[in-house]
Parts: sequence; C-alpha cells; structure tokens
Amino acid sequence: MEPPAPSILRVAPGPCALPGGMRDLLPEEALGRRYLARAVREVFASHGYRPVLLPAYELEEVVTRGLGPGAQGELLRFLDPESGEVLVLRPDMTPQVARLVASRLKGLPPPVRLSYEGSVVRRTRGRTRRHRQLAQAGIECLGHPRPEADAEVLVTMARALRAAGLGAFTVELSHARLVTACLEAVPEGLREPVADALGARDEAVWRALLRGHPEASGGLSRLASLAGDRAVLAEARRALPEALHPALETLETIAGAALLREPSLDLRVDLGEARGQGYYTGALFQFLVEGAGEPVATGGRYDDLLGRYGHPLAATGSALRLDVLEGCLGAREAPGGERRALVWGASPARGALADRLRASGLEVAELDTLDEATARGYARAHGIARVESSWGATIAAEKGAEDASVGGGRSPVGG
Amino acid sequence: MEPPAPSILRVAPGPCALPGGMRDLLPEEALGRRYLARAVREVFASHGYRPVLLPAYELEEVVTRGLGPGAQGELLRFLDPESGEVLVLRPDMTPQVARLVASRLKGLPPPVRLSYEGSVVRRTRGRTRRHRQLAQAGIECLGHPRPEADAEVLVTMARALRAAGLGAFTVELSHARLVTACLEAVPEGLREPVADALGARDEAVWRALLRGHPEASGGLSRLASLAGDRAVLAEARRALPEALHPALETLETIAGAALLREPSLDLRVDLGEARGQGYYTGALFQFLVEGAGEPVATGGRYDDLLGRYGHPLAATGSALRLDVLEGCLGAREAPGGERRALVWGASPARGALADRLRASGLEVAELDTLDEATARGYARAHGIARVESSWGATIAAEKGAEDASVGGGRSPVGG
Repeated sequence: MEPPAPSILRVAPGPCALPGGMRDLLPEEALGRRYLARAVREVFASHGYRPVLLPAYELEEVVTRGLGPGAQGELLRFLDPESGEVLVLRPDMTPQVARLVASRLKGLPPPVRLSYEGSVVRRTRGRTRRHRQLAQAGIECLGHPRPEADAEVLVTMARALRAAGLGAFTVELSHARLVTACLEAVPEGLREPVADALGARDEAVWRALLRGHPEASGGLSRLASLAGDRAVLAEARRALPEALHPALETLETIAGAALLREPSLDLRVDLGEARGQGYYTGALFQFLVEGAGEPVATGGRYDDLLGRYGHPLAATGSALRLDVLEGCLGAREAPGGERRALVWGASPARGALADRLRASGLEVAELDTLDEATARGYARAHGIARVESSWGATIAAEKGAEDASVGGGRSPVGG
Repeated sequence: MEPPAPSILRVAPGPCALPGGMRDLLPEEALGRRYLARAVREVFASHGYRPVLLPAYELEEVVTRGLGPGAQGELLRFLDPESGEVLVLRPDMTPQVARLVASRLKGLPPPVRLSYEGSVVRRTRGRTRRHRQLAQAGIECLGHPRPEADAEVLVTMARALRAAGLGAFTVELSHARLVTACLEAVPEGLREPVADALGARDEAVWRALLRGHPEASGGLSRLASLAGDRAVLAEARRALPEALHPALETLETIAGAALLREPSLDLRVDLGEARGQGYYTGALFQFLVEGAGEPVATGGRYDDLLGRYGHPLAATGSALRLDVLEGCLGAREAPGGERRALVWGASPARGALADRLRASGLEVAELDTLDEATARGYARAHGIARVESSWGATIAAEKGAEDASVGGGRSPVGG
C-alpha cells in the first residue's frame, strides 16, 4: 500500500490572514512597545546618540555590499516596476547607517554617534526558516577605533535595557578574530558550513564536519571551552597563540572600562561565540536573558564596513530587539490606563464635557447613548475605568454653573 | 542623419545610492518628525483613539480585497521564497485596520476607535510615476454609521494639525456618491479613464474623453462648478436630482457638527472632488494648505470595507501625511537643542562628569581629547552649544569637593 501523496494544493488563506511571521500589536501591546521604545530612546539620547530615520528598503547592491555574499540567500527581494531597480527589505540597519555616514555625514569630525529604530526583515534560524519582521532599536559610534568606544556602546545598551525595566541580564564578550583564526585551519571547502554551524551553535554539526581534521577541530574545541567569568581571559592567554593576544587585551580593556562605569554588570566571556553577520571585525558582545531563546541585544566592532561605502572609518555599535525585550518583561500594564474616560449622553453637552476633560489631560472616548447600562457595558468591554455622563453637565450648563459640570455624573464601572 | 539611439544601459548607482523616491532623515529632521508625530498622537489619544501596530507587508490577496482591482497596478509585490506567498508592501493602512477589526477585535462593542502611524508605499501621480515611501498617521472610527462620527474624525484631525503647529488650512467636503452617480451616465467603456482623470483633477482629459456625450459631461461640469463655501450645499439642492439630496443632507450635518466643535474651521465644499481610493462610500474630506501640492490629510466614510473581510461594519477615518506637514511647516528647529552638551578630558573623570550631567537631564556626548580647541571645533561641527571639560572635575574630585565638579570647566563655544 502506498502512503498518501503529499498534497501540493495550497490552502487559501482566510480573508484576514497575515503573512507568516507577521503579527499585529493591539492597543495594550502597542502602548507597551511605545513605552519601551521611549525609555530606550531617552538613554540613547542622554549618551549623545542622535536619531536618524532610514528607508524601509534599499537597493540590493547597496545592502549586499554591506552584508557580504553570505547574506544573499537571506534577503527578501523585489523589483520596482517603474525603474527596474532590484530592491530588498532591510535585514539590518547598521549598513544603512554606514551608507549614510559614508555619504551625507562624512564631513562631520568623528566620532559620530547615531541611533535608529525600526523593523527589519530576517530569515529565522532553526527549524522553521522563514522571514520575520523584527523590531530593533540601536546605536552606532562611528569613527572611534579604540576599545573605550566599545565599552561606551556596551554600557549605553546596558543602561537602556535597565531603563526599559529589565533587571537581570548577562553580557557575554567575545572577539570576531578568534573564531576567524581557528577557521583558517579548517580545509577551505568546509569553512562555510563549519562557520554556519558555529553561528547556529550547532556543535554536533561542526564536529561531524571536522571528523578527520583534528587540528582544526581541536582549535575550535579549545575556543569553545574558554567560557566563564572574566578570569577566562587570563586562561586564554595561556591556551591561545601569541598572535591572538591583542584581541584578548582588547577584551580586557573593554571589560575594565565597562565595569568602571557599571560595576554591577554581570559580564562574562565566551570566546567560542561566532555570530553570523558578515561585517564584524573585532569585539563582539551579546546581552542574554535566561529563557529568552534569543539575545535581547547584540553588538560589536565593524571597522571594515564603512570602507565598502567608500569612506573607511572604524566603528562599533549595538542593537536591541524590542520584541524579545517584551517577551523578557512579560505582560505588564502600559502606564496611563487610569487616564482613560468615557463620556455618554446627548450632543452637544457630551462633546463639550469631553473637551473639558481632554483639556485636563484625560483620554476621552464619547458614546452616543442615553442609557447608563449601555455606557457601562461599553466601558467594561473597552477597559475604560472612568465613566461620565453629560446629563449633569447639561443641567449645570443650564443653571450657568460651569465648574459643577466637569465632575458631573461620574459613575465607576460596576463589576 | 539618424538621431542617436536611446541608451538602454543602466548607469550603475554609486555605493551609497538610495532607491528612487526614498530618503534618509538626518538627526534634526528625525527629531522634527518625532516631535510632530508625538503632538499628533497626543491629540488622537485624547479623543479616545488607541494605537495599533501593523505589519509593513501583507498578503496580496488581503490587500487587494480591501483596495479593489483598480489598485492592482499600484502595488509593490514580492515573493516569500520559503512559503511561496505573494506579499505586498502596504500602500494604505486603512485596509489593515479593517482586517484587524474584522478579526481579532470583532468582539468589541462599537464604535472602536483606533490610531496608527507608519510608512506606506505608493505610486505617485503626475509626471514621474514611481513608488515613494510616505509617512502617515491616522485614525479610524469603526462601527459608527452616523454623520457625527465623520464630524468627530474631521474635528480630531483638525486639532491634530493645529497641535502640530499648522495655523492655516482649509477643509474641503465632498461625497463619494455624487461623482459615482454622475459616472453612471458615462458610457461603460469610458468610466474608468474618466474616473482616473477626475481623480487626477485633469479636466482637459475627462472633457476630451466625454466629447460626444453631452449628458455625462454636463453632469460632471455641474458637479465641478459646485465648489465654494457652505452655501454651495443649498445651491446643490436646486441643481442636483432628488436622489442625491440625502448625500447633501449628510454633508450639512457634518458641517454643522464640526463647526459647533470648532467654530473657526475654514470649511468649504467641492462636490466635484473624486479621490481615487476604491473603498470610500460616503462623505469625503481633505485638509488643504496653500502651496503644499498635496492634501496634508484626507479622510472619509467607507461603509463597505469591513464587509470584504467578513464583518460588515460602517466606518470612517482620516490620515495625515507627516512628510507633507513638514513641508508646510518649513524648517523649524527641533526643541531640546539647548539640552545638548559635550564633555572632554581624560577618563575616568570625563565619564563620571558626563554621567552626572546626564542625571540632570542633559544629552551628553563625550570626546576623548585633552585639547580645548579640538573640543570646541567638534562641538561647533556637531551643533552642540554647551562644552564642559573634566579637568575641573578631576581636581575637585581629588580635593573631595564633589559638587564643584558638575559645573567645572564650562566654556561656551566660540564663533
């Protein structure tokens, strides 16, 4: 008996279907996002990072110039039918910032500190490889080649996460040069799949690939074992060849400078870390929260990226994921709920009362009903705590006693 | 002699080229946009409109379900390589709100008031028909079939524009039924091109198309002549057949209700107005500013749209264009410039001083230099008004006189 043939018929989506990987944020979620974004933005601004607004899509050749050929398979491309240009939805905002600084901002004396906020579209790793829209906010410090800039970015990001309400997180330091050096011992044909497996932290895969190549495998194993607290850096000096010591010194300097500014940081080291993005050249860091599944923020140095846009400049930066941060913080009430009110009754008294309440800072919805039970039911369903009728207002206005009208007819929502 | 053949070679874009119709916003512009968006958002919230966040792209069939077949040529489509879904960058956020209310929010008692903010991608009319990213903010009042909802939306939008700093604008009222009724007299094959010409306000084109059809042409001419102040509505009652009088009464009611709430509104009537979007069914309004080239906001009633998503519900809404609004307001300094400071000197005193200034609400960039002239040049180039050195701070800290350090070494930027 044959197994049933797999169906190739696509099920038609419902009239309200969303593309895979996309979702809507309802009011409470949208307000929560806005609140987080503002908290983060204020920390970025207080540290001298100024916002830029970047387009949602770019020319394909401009994006791949930044991300390198490895990113080709990850992009969502489309064609502008008028111009014939091949465009891509941005998978990353750092190359956009690099493009901007290499063009319109190249006259500014360095360092240039910029921040950005917006969504990027990326293919997720793991079992379901599909594109998802991710919400990012980040900073870039461009034209500052020394480790203290990496420490500044790291500390600013840590403060932004705290300002958003994240209490406990770990910062993990590593360095792009270390894994790169180990990969040089990997036979050329295996380098890309091994690097992919390292990026995906899939140890079983890279070990299987390197069976029969003990030297390369040994180097990577040694790196992978160099994880723990800051003392690992001293241990690494003994375990790793001298050519890699400058990278270790850089990490020491960054750790020292960051802890001087933020002594309570939980700073750790994981030298086997090899994130996938193509442009990192130096220190790497990621902010981890237990159980989050993904880093809440990542960052690092990318000293070669601006050169690809014709304006060589050392740079470092970091971006956090607002959506991951929300997952870490859990469901929390967006502030300001107590400011919501419903005014019911007949026009024009209802509108006049609503406007007076607005002037006092309330968020006022109007309901055209003369029935209190209807108004209360509406308020309950919409989560509005305060209910006012304009009946009192009408009577008061007729009597000419305007001040009595503002509080007139207040009735708390029943259970 | 032959004319030279047109070149079909595309000029390669520079390494920093942007797609046509796109632009970056530099810090001053981005801060200005943020300031405007916040002002608008606060008015929306104070009138009971609550934010939702919607994805940047949707399934093609979901978007065309909302916009109708006329929009097919206007969309930027792409294919998700994993799922095979055909996706489009959203050209309009109203169908997204309709989709959301028809699905996840359909249990809420009406009216549901929602606001949104974001960019849409549209093909521009006029000579260079190409796609552009436009910045919108809007409100929708769903489940409210009466003209007072249209008036509420109109008044809320007028207040939002004023809160953003727009002093003078005109609101033009019209009604989708009027032009639709006139188009019924147009021979079927000509209806679409005539409607297009009307939407583009290209009178020469629709008159040319209707040469030989004096009845249809006469009806449209009559409508086009019905423009002016509110008295035009009375005139229209005499000029238009009785079947169209309910539409005129609706406009009277909206005008009356809006002027009751905002007596200073410059409200006008233009019954020949025929905007292109496919889903409007009732009152239409647009906010015009002299010399702006495009309406700064548009809106109207769309009672059939939610039915297309399986949940029939009357609705009305309006959206403003932040980019057009910026053009109307002209270059204005974003507020908060006086809060920017530069701290120069050596670490760690520099960082400590910077953090103290941040705690007092300043936006502080650090510069790693020991040379005052360098610091002043940097501040000048970056537009930073206040310059502080940590020298004073270091000395003060050594003496243990911490409070002296906060103002230490202040030096205004020279010319």
